[in-house]
Amino acid sequence: MTEPVAAAVESLRLVDHHVHGAARGDLDAEGFAAGLSESPFPAPPGTSQLDSQVGFAVRRWCAPVLDLPPHTDVPTYLRRRRELGADEVARRFLAASGIGCFLVETGYRADEILSPAEMARSAATPAHPASAEEVVRLESVAEDVAATGPDASGFAEAFAAALGKQVQGAVGLKSVIAYRYGLDFDPEPPDAGEVRRAAGQWLRDGGRLSDPVLLRHLLWAGVEHGLPLQFHVGFGDTDLTMHRCDPSKMTGFLRRVQDRGVPIMLLHCYPYHRTAGYLAAVFPHVYFDVGLAVNYSGARSAAVIAESLEVAPFAKVLFSSDAWGPPELHHLGALLWRRAMTALLGEWVESGDWSQADALRVAELIGAGNARRVYRLEER
Amino acid sequence: MTEPVAAAVESLRLVDHHVHGAARGDLDAEGFAAGLSESPFPAPPGTSQLDSQVGFAVRRWCAPVLDLPPHTDVPTYLRRRRELGADEVARRFLAASGIGCFLVETGYRADEILSPAEMARSAATPAHPASAEEVVRLESVAEDVAATGPDASGFAEAFAAALGKQVQGAVGLKSVIAYRYGLDFDPEPPDAGEVRRAAGQWLRDGGRLSDPVLLRHLLWAGVEHGLPLQFHVGFGDTDLTMHRCDPSKMTGFLRRVQDRGVPIMLLHCYPYHRTAGYLAAVFPHVYFDVGLAVNYSGARSAAVIAESLEVAPFAKVLFSSDAWGPPELHHLGALLWRRAMTALLGEWVESGDWSQADALRVAELIGAGNARRVYRLEER
Amino acid sequence: MTEPVAAAVESLRLVDHHVHGAARGDLDAEGFAAGLSESPFPAPPGTSQLDSQVGFAVRRWCAPVLDLPPHTDVPTYLRRRRELGADEVARRFLAASGIGCFLVETGYRADEILSPAEMARSAATPAHPASAEEVVRLESVAEDVAATGPDASGFAEAFAAALGKQVQGAVGLKSVIAYRYGLDFDPEPPDAGEVRRAAGQWLRDGGRLSDPVLLRHLLWAGVEHGLPLQFHVGFGDTDLTMHRCDPSKMTGFLRRVQDRGVPIMLLHCYPYHRTAGYLAAVFPHVYFDVGLAVNYSGARSAAVIAESLEVAPFAKVLFSSDAWGPPELHHLGALLWRRAMTALLGEWVESGDWSQADALRVAELIGAGNARRVYRLEER
Repeated sequence: MTEPVAAAVESLRLVDHHVHGAARGDLDAEGFAAGLSESPFPAPPGTSQLDSQVGFAVRRWCAPVLDLPPHTDVPTYLRRRRELGADEVARRFLAASGIGCFLVETGYRADEILSPAEMARSAATPAHPASAEEVVRLESVAEDVAATGPDASGFAEAFAAALGKQVQGAVGLKSVIAYRYGLDFDPEPPDAGEVRRAAGQWLRDGGRLSDPVLLRHLLWAGVEHGLPLQFHVGFGDTDLTMHRCDPSKMTGFLRRVQDRGVPIMLLHCYPYHRTAGYLAAVFPHVYFDVGLAVNYSGARSAAVIAESLEVAPFAKVLFSSDAWGPPELHHLGALLWRRAMTALLGEWVESGDWSQADALRVAELIGAGNARRVYRLEER
Repeated sequence: MTEPVAAAVESLRLVDHHVHGAARGDLDAEGFAAGLSESPFPAPPGTSQLDSQVGFAVRRWCAPVLDLPPHTDVPTYLRRRRELGADEVARRFLAASGIGCFLVETGYRADEILSPAEMARSAATPAHPASAEEVVRLESVAEDVAATGPDASGFAEAFAAALGKQVQGAVGLKSVIAYRYGLDFDPEPPDAGEVRRAAGQWLRDGGRLSDPVLLRHLLWAGVEHGLPLQFHVGFGDTDLTMHRCDPSKMTGFLRRVQDRGVPIMLLHCYPYHRTAGYLAAVFPHVYFDVGLAVNYSGARSAAVIAESLEVAPFAKVLFSSDAWGPPELHHLGALLWRRAMTALLGEWVESGDWSQADALRVAELIGAGNARRVYRLEER
Repeated sequence: MTEPVAAAVESLRLVDHHVHGAARGDLDAEGFAAGLSESPFPAPPGTSQLDSQVGFAVRRWCAPVLDLPPHTDVPTYLRRRRELGADEVARRFLAASGIGCFLVETGYRADEILSPAEMARSAATPAHPASAEEVVRLESVAEDVAATGPDASGFAEAFAAALGKQVQGAVGLKSVIAYRYGLDFDPEPPDAGEVRRAAGQWLRDGGRLSDPVLLRHLLWAGVEHGLPLQFHVGFGDTDLTMHRCDPSKMTGFLRRVQDRGVPIMLLHCYPYHRTAGYLAAVFPHVYFDVGLAVNYSGARSAAVIAESLEVAPFAKVLFSSDAWGPPELHHLGALLWRRAMTALLGEWVESGDWSQADALRVAELIGAGNARRVYRLEER
């Protein structure tokens, strides 16, 4: 009875609405372990970051893609990776993922990873073409502008010009205000004088953009373009302070932009995915995913996905892998999502709670249709 | 082995300790969809709020009550609803719910829904009488008083008199301070001067009561009556800001009223139901339910209910539907609770963790006995 | 296929890295119920704290250790307890627990419970020796110092001397700042003047130590010793305010001590165990457990443990019972943990997600190996 569900989910060409490029070069043992962890630090002596759900999931599900048996040990796995070379490894995993369209956020360490065009080429197979679109990270645009040496009074205009150029051809924008400040930011747009003063300070001090006035200015400048605006929410690295990444903390901003026609995409959300589900349920312009948490929770990913399918309408939930670096993560994100959806929808069809037709429809919406509609991918 | 549990849960005459009236008139497609969503806004174009756990649950479990097959499509379902008429639809669902006693909160859009007496009449069958009691919403009493045009210095007394009248015959009080302000309110009672000044301001400005001083005054005036005091907590519409509806934020108030002999009933609580369970476990006067979240999580409701049965003693957990409007929600709240309890208790009896006698006793406590004891229903 | 997992988990000699002594004397009905609740208050009339997951789990799993059938009623259970006497009851449960090493926190009502040495003696069997080590509660040391009547300017030195003496032979330190203040404390160490002024105030006022300056001073004095530093986090009694016990609130402190080589052990963590898992995933010096919540959630403990095994590497998760008083809790903590791990790991091996070798390795790490490594137990 669940076989039609399994078959439909298996064959879905996914839209990965929030993802980064696959690693461009070979990864050594250290780089591989680092790529499978959100920690910027090495594991304590005598321990391994690969003794984790994500590490076990890679050994289980990715080894066969490299012609190795499931649960292959790490040294053998890395040896085989080197043998095949980074290009072939990326090609295999991206093609195996069954992702038909990548919405690639390009603003983080872009030189180490494949570009959107390269992602599309690597993922394509004779039977299945693949495409990629760009999502622009607001803070990266601002930091690039800062590097050109504007003065305080010229920053806002220079940023507007640069962003205007970058959004040509992009399908969405992304903010990492959760990392740089927190989601408990002032929901009001800063005025021109505040922006000028803050820009002056930042341009003098240098460094990463973390001034809340400027971060808010970027958001409001982004809103002007009408594209879906992605927010990092919840799970991530040590730059963030978790309780300040509760998406409910940005409720004021959600209310403030509701009439602007800008879809707000809450990314990852773990462990606040139920709060994200509430926000998506009550605000028409709010959407969310549990990407990243799916890869990192491995054998537990079905439980996390199940919690994301409680109160929000199914038109408001999206698939993403949030993979960055090891292309294992692109494949694994898709594979774990398919396994979880097959298990959950199959169970609900089996118990009679859902009809099979509804299950197939919801799988398509979350896996691809919602992203196509919200990012207007058909119009491109 | 789980059959006795299933039979006992199935035949339980429930006490729904927090519910509103069923819709008085017919519902068109828009009204029906709105009635099955906490969002005050229409769904985005190309999507439907009925593509959701609650929408699927209604089509699955409510269609048969209207002589339709499970998973009937929405247009057919609405046609059948119109054919039967609002009275018959309400009668069928309320009777099918197996709820024997409704504690009806009457303070929200009361003219659109059945009164407590009408609820009791609609739910009664020849075999099973039904009753209804009233729960008074503090803020509605205050707003009714404001409409009579008192001056600032007379407000407190006029409110006291009106509340004194309203509580005659009521079994409980309800506060929506979570919606109007947040649960992070000052736990101390305001003094007479503060109340007078705040009343003056509100009576001049008009509008809904949302002044925190007055909201707190209502709470303390309510406490005087010694009736169980219900608080909206967690999941609801866009009036609330979720992180300010964490019940832990009102811990100061819980401590402050502990010696007053007033049971504090935390309603819904999702996604903070585990925090509510902690509060109910450690404070003797605290009780909670996961109503509302049960209906909205549909096929996932057993998972939510399971989380509510972790740390709190079973004498502190109650059943509620929190239905308002479509009588489908009254039926569904009861049905999903029965399914979940049967599955959970059945599983624990099956695994040997619980005895069958304990399972039957706990089902009765949560489904009816706790509410009868806390609201003193037998004494009426 | 899961039998090897079950057998391995069953035979594991556990290290309980956070536990207190078993009750020294007999427990009457009231004392027994109080010992199985985190509430300092009696249950409301007509209810029992033993109608709870923990109460049912004791009747189910502990009765057989006293030669009674599962689910024995409470009066019979208590009669049998008295018949056997406190010593024999402690001996049976501690031996049955299969805990080979107890890291005993001795700072709470130490005169009512067995000392570490007595714990080791009671738990040992001819086949299985048992050991116990001490964990020192910082606040108790400070309160003992205060009782010796130092003046404000001598407090810091007297505390340093007392702590220096206490840590001889101890394997870790513990802070209850979550209870006494909250985890949202200032992450910076107070300066000497602040400490002197705060000490003067406290020594004049007397009472329990709850001044945040002094609580912070204790933490920083503790950090000097380099021992693992345990923090109460989350679930506990009414002294705490839950939302201030979110471990994310102490992120500033975690960052501030990262270079000090001090493992930070987050205890219990419920309902913030997923946030604790995030912290353990990204900060190399952070570890956590879900002890206490395991006992109190009984038949639901596998669900709680499952959530603790999502994003953190398995080298960062530890077993603890956090038992205090009734030795049923020491046994039950171990038993429920074994049942949950057997079920979870067995399921993951069965589904092919994990290899059996990995499952066995992870069970040993969480049950014993991580504690041995972090507390350097082999070096003793």
